[in-house]
Amino acid sequence: MTIRMETMQGLHRTHGCGTISEQEVGKEVVLCGWVERRRDHGGLIFLDLRDRSGVVQVVASPDHNVESFHKAEDVRNEYVLCVRGKITKRDEAAINPNLPTGAYEMFCEELRVLNSAKTPPFYIQDDIDVDENIRLKYRYLDLRRPEMQRNLILRHKVTKAMRDFFDSRDFLEIETPMLTKSTPEGARDYLVPSRVNAGTFYALPQSPQIFKQILMVAGYEKYFQIVRCFRDEDLRADRQPEFTQLDLEMSFVDEEDIYSMLEEMIAHVFKTTLGKEIPLSMPRITWDEAMDKYGSDKPDLRFDMAFTDVTDLVKDTEFKVFRSVIDNGGVVKGIVVPGDAGIPRRELDDLVEYVNRYGAKGLAWACFNEDGSIKSQIMKFLGEDTIRNIGEKMGAKGGDLVLMIADKPATVARALGELRLEMARRMNMIDQDKLAFTWVTDFPMFEYNEDEKRYVAMHHPFTMPRHEDLDKLESDPGSVKAIAYDMVLNGVEIGGGSLRIYQSDVQEKVFKAIGLSEEEAKSKFGFMLDAFQYGAPPHAGCAFGLDRLVMLMAKRQSIRDVIAFPKTQSASDIMSQAPSEVEPKQLKELHIKPDIEEEEEQSLV
Amino acid sequence: MTIRMETMQGLHRTHGCGTISEQEVGKEVVLCGWVERRRDHGGLIFLDLRDRSGVVQVVASPDHNVESFHKAEDVRNEYVLCVRGKITKRDEAAINPNLPTGAYEMFCEELRVLNSAKTPPFYIQDDIDVDENIRLKYRYLDLRRPEMQRNLILRHKVTKAMRDFFDSRDFLEIETPMLTKSTPEGARDYLVPSRVNAGTFYALPQSPQIFKQILMVAGYEKYFQIVRCFRDEDLRADRQPEFTQLDLEMSFVDEEDIYSMLEEMIAHVFKTTLGKEIPLSMPRITWDEAMDKYGSDKPDLRFDMAFTDVTDLVKDTEFKVFRSVIDNGGVVKGIVVPGDAGIPRRELDDLVEYVNRYGAKGLAWACFNEDGSIKSQIMKFLGEDTIRNIGEKMGAKGGDLVLMIADKPATVARALGELRLEMARRMNMIDQDKLAFTWVTDFPMFEYNEDEKRYVAMHHPFTMPRHEDLDKLESDPGSVKAIAYDMVLNGVEIGGGSLRIYQSDVQEKVFKAIGLSEEEAKSKFGFMLDAFQYGAPPHAGCAFGLDRLVMLMAKRQSIRDVIAFPKTQSASDIMSQAPSEVEPKQLKELHIKPDIEEEEEQSLV
Repeated sequence: MTIRMETMQGLHRTHGCGTISEQEVGKEVVLCGWVERRRDHGGLIFLDLRDRSGVVQVVASPDHNVESFHKAEDVRNEYVLCVRGKITKRDEAAINPNLPTGAYEMFCEELRVLNSAKTPPFYIQDDIDVDENIRLKYRYLDLRRPEMQRNLILRHKVTKAMRDFFDSRDFLEIETPMLTKSTPEGARDYLVPSRVNAGTFYALPQSPQIFKQILMVAGYEKYFQIVRCFRDEDLRADRQPEFTQLDLEMSFVDEEDIYSMLEEMIAHVFKTTLGKEIPLSMPRITWDEAMDKYGSDKPDLRFDMAFTDVTDLVKDTEFKVFRSVIDNGGVVKGIVVPGDAGIPRRELDDLVEYVNRYGAKGLAWACFNEDGSIKSQIMKFLGEDTIRNIGEKMGAKGGDLVLMIADKPATVARALGELRLEMARRMNMIDQDKLAFTWVTDFPMFEYNEDEKRYVAMHHPFTMPRHEDLDKLESDPGSVKAIAYDMVLNGVEIGGGSLRIYQSDVQEKVFKAIGLSEEEAKSKFGFMLDAFQYGAPPHAGCAFGLDRLVMLMAKRQSIRDVIAFPKTQSASDIMSQAPSEVEPKQLKELHIKPDIEEEEEQSLV
Repeated sequence: MTIRMETMQGLHRTHGCGTISEQEVGKEVVLCGWVERRRDHGGLIFLDLRDRSGVVQVVASPDHNVESFHKAEDVRNEYVLCVRGKITKRDEAAINPNLPTGAYEMFCEELRVLNSAKTPPFYIQDDIDVDENIRLKYRYLDLRRPEMQRNLILRHKVTKAMRDFFDSRDFLEIETPMLTKSTPEGARDYLVPSRVNAGTFYALPQSPQIFKQILMVAGYEKYFQIVRCFRDEDLRADRQPEFTQLDLEMSFVDEEDIYSMLEEMIAHVFKTTLGKEIPLSMPRITWDEAMDKYGSDKPDLRFDMAFTDVTDLVKDTEFKVFRSVIDNGGVVKGIVVPGDAGIPRRELDDLVEYVNRYGAKGLAWACFNEDGSIKSQIMKFLGEDTIRNIGEKMGAKGGDLVLMIADKPATVARALGELRLEMARRMNMIDQDKLAFTWVTDFPMFEYNEDEKRYVAMHHPFTMPRHEDLDKLESDPGSVKAIAYDMVLNGVEIGGGSLRIYQSDVQEKVFKAIGLSEEEAKSKFGFMLDAFQYGAPPHAGCAFGLDRLVMLMAKRQSIRDVIAFPKTQSASDIMSQAPSEVEPKQLKELHIKPDIEEEEEQSLV
């Protein structure tokens, strides 16, 4: 490199590049930033100088300042400059209408090269088509791109709006520990070996659940925190080993207080960050109804296409496939896809394959043509009358397609739920600008875990059962509903919570229902149970996934696009190369040694 | 317990206990809270009901509601109640002037016992004299005490004020990872074994230093974060294994920009949370001067009592003790303790012992009595004239005590510095309401580590050396000063930072000076050095210890009093009993096993 690096000494930045306006015309300014583009034209050098505020055109001319001009000749993309000069108006013909500062430019009186730059491996611009691993490796360059900057700015604004909201409602943000006790109920913990207490471990929190409940016992009444949480699980597209949660808890409230508080919070956040009005009263749907109508506990309600149960209509049929399903406790449900009666046969075959992936053995279809005729692969088994009755019950009109699945209720829910989403996408029925919020309420208290042959808590074991179900905790745990709620936006669960158990006898019964002996409960949650004996108030709370919420607000497909330094699917940071090997001395001090099986070791080679 | 637990169903809290005022008189309210005290008097039961907002008197009378009265008979301290009734004015004679709500009371129409409580192991009130371990074990009760509540409320307000300030200055709060790469330069890391990548480990961050510098390379220009950090060090009173830091970084600025930004931030925080005005221009003192005058790089400037160097006055003395010190490069320095000439001999002996603890072999003293006479244990060695000259140079007046230490400069600084603080405490010279801020500037770039026989970075290796010292990096590293600064409040370092190196060649020289080979530097900081090749701007930053700052603001002696759930000196959480043993299956999944030596194992039994 022929360029000598310079300092800013003696110069003081006066403006952001993107802030140059009519007001600065004729004035001398000092700008700093990165070279986005260099063009040589007509004996002048034009530099697009970019900083966080935007871009402005800087002109180096030998007539103005020869030294600056010569330095500008050596400047390349992403070089860091500090320039001094007067702002002038461009000629009418030279105005760039695509740039907010496009009517102005600066003629350099002084140009300093603060740093040089190697050629970036991808363009610093939106909508690049680059392997994500390359973006993650050079995250400092990826984060320079305007769309990534907008995402992180939005994220900052969202957390600021949340904090302003909760502060104005007398909530206190209280920090809870990161080095906590491992309580292996729930997901897998990240562990941290203790140096001082050989053979013991801290766990990174999966959520501050216990601490926030302790804070209610401690009388804080309104707590919130925007807090990092950790889960050592195999990663899916919308999961990260560390993620950020908006966590909150309130005392002396019921679920209605929680609903209205959170609806106001969401409305405030959307209004102040995106300028969008969210209606203050969100629709509600019970878990049973959501599963029944949409096959999902997080239904996407930007469109309806609800399920219709047609079991009744076909239960007396001779059609063996339906009959055997129904005789074995199964159901037959279907959806209407408006205007898709002309679907090609090949595409129907595709859809059969699609529902197979979700466990359904088959897919029945019926095309209700515009001319009143019907085409269906099961016509010969059910007869046209039955098909017409089905169409009528489902509200199918001429030109509509009916799709049906017959299977166990859980399989129908899953496969038909996925099919519903898929058809909406194919038919372009989803308004991308719509924000469909809903509360899903009355979750089951427990779900049966086939592996462990026991009931486990669906939310967590501190969730309050519905009052009227308390006496079924022992006799019929599977039927107990919880006072638990999720907030769903466009088919994504963005928050969830519940009323909590505050009476020791109820808590004991719940532990019993999930097969936790008194001793086990004591060793895992003993301090919490102790705390609850010293005057626990009724309380309730909620937690929101910040990453997911911001992702939806920014209209991104991946939470990695709204996290500055995310991990990959294999939980590693490609940029810093974490996790990494450490020095044996470090492990020795922590009283641990590697326990790697041979095959693993080989796979490491 | 004879009391049946009840729910709030059908009742809705209308007020906080502490908010009851003239306005509520005659109105029916619903209150919730904890019973602070119960008194039976004249056939009535008086309950002090407490919630986060304060305390109000609730009266249960058989005339108003017999059922409530009977329930109230069974109520004990810390029971959780919900009460409904009318607010009335107390009789003039019954007004409690110590209680904000002392002119009012509520007569119960309805009383529900939401929860019972065991008798707490200590009183829920301020200034209790209870072993801290008991307080920590029952933290949920300790946190109910008003002073602890005030501390956490202050902490909430401080962080809110910081965020408001930085938001208004266009800073972005950007979250950095908690699962990072171990870089064993600095303190000891907490490690987190990786399950997915056998044999590798994450480290919990000691600070987001590298990530925030990467964010500057990424063009974010103004970053801040209130963030948890971790250091696995042996704990002192003001240290915790996990602590919270206000972290910030700016691009295209010099140290003056940082000073004025942070002075405004501190002024904003003190003004909005404590109503205190902090002058916008804090005094500055160089590290050399601070060490020279106060023997400390974090001088307590609530009082002066600066050192005077009297080496010159005694360098020709025959007094062997002084002579041999001076001949070996030592110095003689002293302080004047105003009005302490009458100090008893026994106390002087105490002081000798006191300075011994800090490495000084002896302490010379001279009492300048009101009557003009002098008493000194070294009078016979130095002669009265020399003692008078010393007194004159030091500005000692009649009635003052002069204390001197002769030793190596570092020992004099340390011992005399501690003595200065001790004398100020003994003489009650410290105004507890005073806020003495100062910047300490121009820190040495390196300090020599005797154990490792090499220079190590005093702040960290990314600190910018003073421009004029750059060419001494190789020839005389010990004399190189850094553009580094600490903010000190009342003798406590509350923040520190520096300009950062942004040019690769300077960075290489610094690594070399601390004995880091190119290869080592690459393996430890490779990704950062890579990033810096793609256009790193000049940048600077700072980090504040939030716990310490809030501790000083709350006038507490321990940071544990401003942390909701702190750890003990042995890094454990007494309440939740973390760290703890975990299940062998968990370790197996993480590819580690215990490595505990026999003697350790025995000590665990």
